[in-house]
Amino acid sequence: MPETLTGPVEVVGAGLLGTSIALALRQAGVEVLLSDTSNEHLRTASGLGAGRSRVDGDRPQLVVVAVPPDLLAPVIADALARTAETPGAVVTDVGSVKTAPLAALAGAPALSRYVGSHPMAGSERSGPLAASAALFDGRPWAVTPHPEAAPGVVAVVEELARLCGAVVVRLTPEEHDRAVARISHVPHLLAALVAGRLAEAPADHLALSGQGVRDVTRVAAGNPSLYGQIVAGNAAAVEELLVEVRSDLDRLIDAVAEGDRPGLESLLTQGVAGTRAIPGKHGGPARPTRPVFVSVPDHAGELARLFADAGESGVNIEDVHIDHDPGRPVGLVELVVEESRAEHLLVSLESRGWVTHR
Amino acid sequence: MPETLTGPVEVVGAGLLGTSIALALRQAGVEVLLSDTSNEHLRTASGLGAGRSRVDGDRPQLVVVAVPPDLLAPVIADALARTAETPGAVVTDVGSVKTAPLAALAGAPALSRYVGSHPMAGSERSGPLAASAALFDGRPWAVTPHPEAAPGVVAVVEELARLCGAVVVRLTPEEHDRAVARISHVPHLLAALVAGRLAEAPADHLALSGQGVRDVTRVAAGNPSLYGQIVAGNAAAVEELLVEVRSDLDRLIDAVAEGDRPGLESLLTQGVAGTRAIPGKHGGPARPTRPVFVSVPDHAGELARLFADAGESGVNIEDVHIDHDPGRPVGLVELVVEESRAEHLLVSLESRGWVTHR
Repeated sequence: MPETLTGPVEVVGAGLLGTSIALALRQAGVEVLLSDTSNEHLRTASGLGAGRSRVDGDRPQLVVVAVPPDLLAPVIADALARTAETPGAVVTDVGSVKTAPLAALAGAPALSRYVGSHPMAGSERSGPLAASAALFDGRPWAVTPHPEAAPGVVAVVEELARLCGAVVVRLTPEEHDRAVARISHVPHLLAALVAGRLAEAPADHLALSGQGVRDVTRVAAGNPSLYGQIVAGNAAAVEELLVEVRSDLDRLIDAVAEGDRPGLESLLTQGVAGTRAIPGKHGGPARPTRPVFVSVPDHAGELARLFADAGESGVNIEDVHIDHDPGRPVGLVELVVEESRAEHLLVSLESRGWVTHR
Repeated sequence: MPETLTGPVEVVGAGLLGTSIALALRQAGVEVLLSDTSNEHLRTASGLGAGRSRVDGDRPQLVVVAVPPDLLAPVIADALARTAETPGAVVTDVGSVKTAPLAALAGAPALSRYVGSHPMAGSERSGPLAASAALFDGRPWAVTPHPEAAPGVVAVVEELARLCGAVVVRLTPEEHDRAVARISHVPHLLAALVAGRLAEAPADHLALSGQGVRDVTRVAAGNPSLYGQIVAGNAAAVEELLVEVRSDLDRLIDAVAEGDRPGLESLLTQGVAGTRAIPGKHGGPARPTRPVFVSVPDHAGELARLFADAGESGVNIEDVHIDHDPGRPVGLVELVVEESRAEHLLVSLESRGWVTHR
């Protein structure tokens, strides 16, 4: 069985993830075949340059199943059946849960040709129009071999992740599901509970909303049907963590009710430790960065002038935040740069007349 | 009593908020006197141009108390006593809770000269070095008159908020505390519980962390002692909401455990409604904007070139997001512009060779 990915690759499901994978593969020169129950998605994805529609007689080397969680098992089984005649054909999926679909596939013929995977990238937006070949660049992409999976099959799926620019993280399906319960599903559910308390609030209370509550609740804007499928598909791991959260919440309520400051601070301190446990973006140690703050008038061309001047300094800008208030006369721009280059950037900008905040 | 703010203004507490207020007032030409128990903060704030240290004999028109919640009541009482001889002198504070300090002040002489307030701006950072005159631009600033407050006193405090560039939201102290419990304190506490579950997670689970969990937990990095004071100072309103959240959490756990999809989706749908209830940034209707996505190579000068080209198009860029991954070869930059100008920007950038994502 070939361990390199030469194509063609069939992508089943031309939504945000499927179309983004297709675009990334096309950019890498791999032929892509698209299928979707929605003709509109198919036409849109093709129009974006994501590949051509699959026709009878196509013999993909790899089928990537990118459909909602409830449909994963039957669509994977169908892909295995359709590729039974193609020597070395591999099937993967990019669903958010891994053990439940695998359990549903138990006993399916040719299961050794299937390995699940899960790129940790997405958006509150959905559909092919939100797709981007760059969606996976530098992101973790879990690859989750089961005991029957052939090593060559795992290699092909890992090659897919790398061709899309992602960083492979190999986990068992069970470990994967426990991990995403903690770092994705439970945060989503708790954000939804916080947001749920806002729906009935008086307007003059909500008028006080700042950036904090916007950040905490952002993910809760995601599609309820899709997230319902994801959570239901990972029920055991999610329930276990939610019960732990409930026990912390009980302790928290007691501490607030009894004015128990040490108890309250200990829960808050545990939270601080958690924010520090999140690793650098590539899963490795974070490269030390430092923010540089600059005041910028809010009219056309001023940001351009700032970035031109920053560019002149030769310092690479790794991230930018603008204080989120359209219409204010002066904005505060935060330029995130490598720590060792921050002082040089500050001096360089100040020499060009910019007001920095040290 | 004069209803305009002419100064001098004394700022007690040269931390993030106090120094930012002082800088904004200095920019508006108002004389600022600083006091702080930390000489280092005082020197730093003065060095930033935030004003001079207060000396005996100074007669401020307005004292702004910007100290941690536990110290609010005694420092406000002291400010009222110190200004007893100054005709028309006003005292306010910028603390995160309003009813508890007021209750502690009950019966204090000259309470009619005090009105509480609370700017909805801050940072995970603290101290005068993190201060900015632009911190309050366009932000809500709650002003919370109590029944004994003189109307002229309220007018002076509202003038302070406006001089700092903020938008005044008038609420009773009780309404304010219920509002911030919902849109600030409870989101912070739930973010801390989510983050708390990360502290003990295996490293290969945390390696899958994406932007979602980073956003949900960001505020939980704040100082536990300060947030402990804030939450303890607003215990009644916080406890009431936390009990509601616990009831939702119980329903959620049941729905997950029993595979009750409609129950699960109804909680998620309530969350979506909550994210939509958060108003536009000025408390009024949001100006319609649209994101424009552009691929940008990750090396020095490329962002500069993009912003220069965007500037040439004459379209004002209101916000920028860069996909948060230092070190990836190509980043996806999101330029947020007024909806009616987005197409013009896209065409203009494409004509200059940029790869946009429509």
